[in-house]
Amino acid sequence: MKTKVSLLLTGSELMNGDVTDTNSVIFAEHLNDIGLSIDKKVTIGDDQDLLAIEIAQLSQGSDVLIINGGLGPTVDDLTAQVLATACSVNLVLHQQAHQHLKLWAEKRKTVLNAPNLKQAYLPENSTVIANKTGSAVGFSVEFNQCLIICTPGVPSELTHMLKEEIVPSLIKSFSAPKHNEIARLHLFGIGESNLQALINSTFPDWPNEITIGFRAAMPILELKLITCCEKGQVLLPQWLEKLTSLLDAHILGTGANENSTIADYLVPLLIESKQKITVAESCTGGLIASQITAIAGASAIFEAGFVTYSNEMKSKMLGVPVTTLIKHGAVSEATVLAMAQGALINSDADFTIAVSGIAGPDGGTEDKPVGSVWIAWGDKNKIQAKYYCIPVARKYFQQVVAARSLDLIRRMLINSNNSAYYDK
Amino acid sequence: MKTKVSLLLTGSELMNGDVTDTNSVIFAEHLNDIGLSIDKKVTIGDDQDLLAIEIAQLSQGSDVLIINGGLGPTVDDLTAQVLATACSVNLVLHQQAHQHLKLWAEKRKTVLNAPNLKQAYLPENSTVIANKTGSAVGFSVEFNQCLIICTPGVPSELTHMLKEEIVPSLIKSFSAPKHNEIARLHLFGIGESNLQALINSTFPDWPNEITIGFRAAMPILELKLITCCEKGQVLLPQWLEKLTSLLDAHILGTGANENSTIADYLVPLLIESKQKITVAESCTGGLIASQITAIAGASAIFEAGFVTYSNEMKSKMLGVPVTTLIKHGAVSEATVLAMAQGALINSDADFTIAVSGIAGPDGGTEDKPVGSVWIAWGDKNKIQAKYYCIPVARKYFQQVVAARSLDLIRRMLINSNNSAYYDK
Repeated sequence: MKTKVSLLLTGSELMNGDVTDTNSVIFAEHLNDIGLSIDKKVTIGDDQDLLAIEIAQLSQGSDVLIINGGLGPTVDDLTAQVLATACSVNLVLHQQAHQHLKLWAEKRKTVLNAPNLKQAYLPENSTVIANKTGSAVGFSVEFNQCLIICTPGVPSELTHMLKEEIVPSLIKSFSAPKHNEIARLHLFGIGESNLQALINSTFPDWPNEITIGFRAAMPILELKLITCCEKGQVLLPQWLEKLTSLLDAHILGTGANENSTIADYLVPLLIESKQKITVAESCTGGLIASQITAIAGASAIFEAGFVTYSNEMKSKMLGVPVTTLIKHGAVSEATVLAMAQGALINSDADFTIAVSGIAGPDGGTEDKPVGSVWIAWGDKNKIQAKYYCIPVARKYFQQVVAARSLDLIRRMLINSNNSAYYDK
Repeated sequence: MKTKVSLLLTGSELMNGDVTDTNSVIFAEHLNDIGLSIDKKVTIGDDQDLLAIEIAQLSQGSDVLIINGGLGPTVDDLTAQVLATACSVNLVLHQQAHQHLKLWAEKRKTVLNAPNLKQAYLPENSTVIANKTGSAVGFSVEFNQCLIICTPGVPSELTHMLKEEIVPSLIKSFSAPKHNEIARLHLFGIGESNLQALINSTFPDWPNEITIGFRAAMPILELKLITCCEKGQVLLPQWLEKLTSLLDAHILGTGANENSTIADYLVPLLIESKQKITVAESCTGGLIASQITAIAGASAIFEAGFVTYSNEMKSKMLGVPVTTLIKHGAVSEATVLAMAQGALINSDADFTIAVSGIAGPDGGTEDKPVGSVWIAWGDKNKIQAKYYCIPVARKYFQQVVAARSLDLIRRMLINSNNSAYYDK
């Protein structure tokens, strides 16, 4: 039977918005490694009554309950006291914890004061868990047939304790034979709903054993295939392959984080093929260049970017004819084509991007509303241009325009005829 | 009686460590502003049964239950279905939600597909909450004498909906008599520990009724003065004034969010004084220009940016003498001064910034290690340059260089002689 794991996070700083909870990710990663997952997570401020009730409830429904935080020396650190109350046992001076504190103080050439000493009082029958870096030991008790483990809130101490002490001990009693597996694909050029519709229509026989999940890490979409059983593990590779050939050029790769941009995937392709890129930016104002140069090694494939925000600068820096600007306006096919051409000539690059649009909130007209943008992209043989309307907030508009521009070059580089959904 | 507020966060990505929960902070900040606080927070994966049980339990003990996430178009978005089940009502096509989706699709010149349309099905008797930026409307229902509010997981959509819709409506029914008050100052050019030491030494008589808090929203530091009692409320304005005159030019302003940059404060100053700025960027590769042009109205004060990544382009685009580059190298005082001068002349701006440095991870030498950077800044009368060493990861280095460059111009504009701690 699946081990039920609950997590109770304590601390008013987690409730009032002062602190972002990053410990949850640390717990998830360490537990997932040994085939365990967290079923429920509860967060509560430093309130004795609420904490005691929660410990009683969570311990009843769980095999393992991990409590995080509240082990420190100050008055708002309540975990040991509350746990003793919840389990109806006394708080006692624990010799091993006391010893740890004495050594800790000795090392720092300091004397244990009363608040420090408080950390040596643990619920009766606790098992101490070593803390090699901080003053607060962890501890565990059995209650309601549930193993309750108390852990420190300081992320570095927690990480250390999980790795060295808790995970090795959980493996012995609870580790599941590991059938859970996750495959990830990172995509651009197809949205969640189109992707879901495409999968539904292409694979009516999609196996129940493989769950599909999505995560939007703008502008990139992560598609996850998740399986928790033996049969699913066997099926996963072949269905991943089917999806891979279905999604084709929409696939950027298999690794992305919250800050990834399309440049993370394009720059390595350029480096590999030893080709350079340049950009002429109006409405994105340097964003495309900055995304390219954020990638280590960009200097091999990028020499110059032209941020031409005013019409005059489009002419002066890129040679866009004044007549073109007067006749067609800055946001026009003729202008972006001339910008792209000018950047290519001035920088001697292989690929070029030019964008001109109306990021808003002002500057829209009936003909060219806020969100209008012309993107030109190409190489020495051919430069083409396309109009898009992306009526979203200014910064998001700039992000989308940057992503699409870089994606259009990426599709050229991988010789894809599979156009993005934004081009359909 | 105190209003009891619970928060239910849904999404397997919050359980398996894929995503750090940042929405909790958004909720806390908006609710705290109107005297409400969150008593309990539960996080659960995309599991219908667990979610239904939790909705039933939390709604019984709360006046307000806010559910976050699970409103999207895909099969793992379960909130509407689960809430209908928990409340024993049907899921029905909601006309207002349907209308919203049709408009949303129309604006994007796309057609609603089945997964999209799913978002128009809400529990019977739901009240729709407008979503101005995304496809998923929010909605609320009354159940167990608890107001249940369902909100989107995308942070930008959530923030908008809280500010425009949910907070104004909660104020009417639930807002508490308010003694808690928070004053915020946003700072740059002084770090947490220097700030704490400065306050300690200047104000030994700091009143107990006002707590000081810090929040680092890189690169900006937020200083919070928090009070929860009547006396503190009376004292707050005068101590805020004392701090304001102490911190002087380090103060950017009083409003910042996680994505704020120094440009948010500099661009309005430039607009107000009708002066233009230009930038010549090597190691930041367009980041400074993109931060300036991310601000609405930037076209009034910015015409051109020069991303000169290679030496050749520094000469070609900015007129940096080839001899200067050969003699002093790209990362040198002479080069950034020439870059700044070249940008000023070519763009006819009032202020200029130039940066050249080694962002790493490669390219460092013994003389000029990774993290070295020369920044030049000034106007038509005087351009000066300074060397900094900021040995941090590439993207963070670029952010710090951009922030300092813009801050140096900001201090010129406000005629400050109070130099930043990075210059001490």
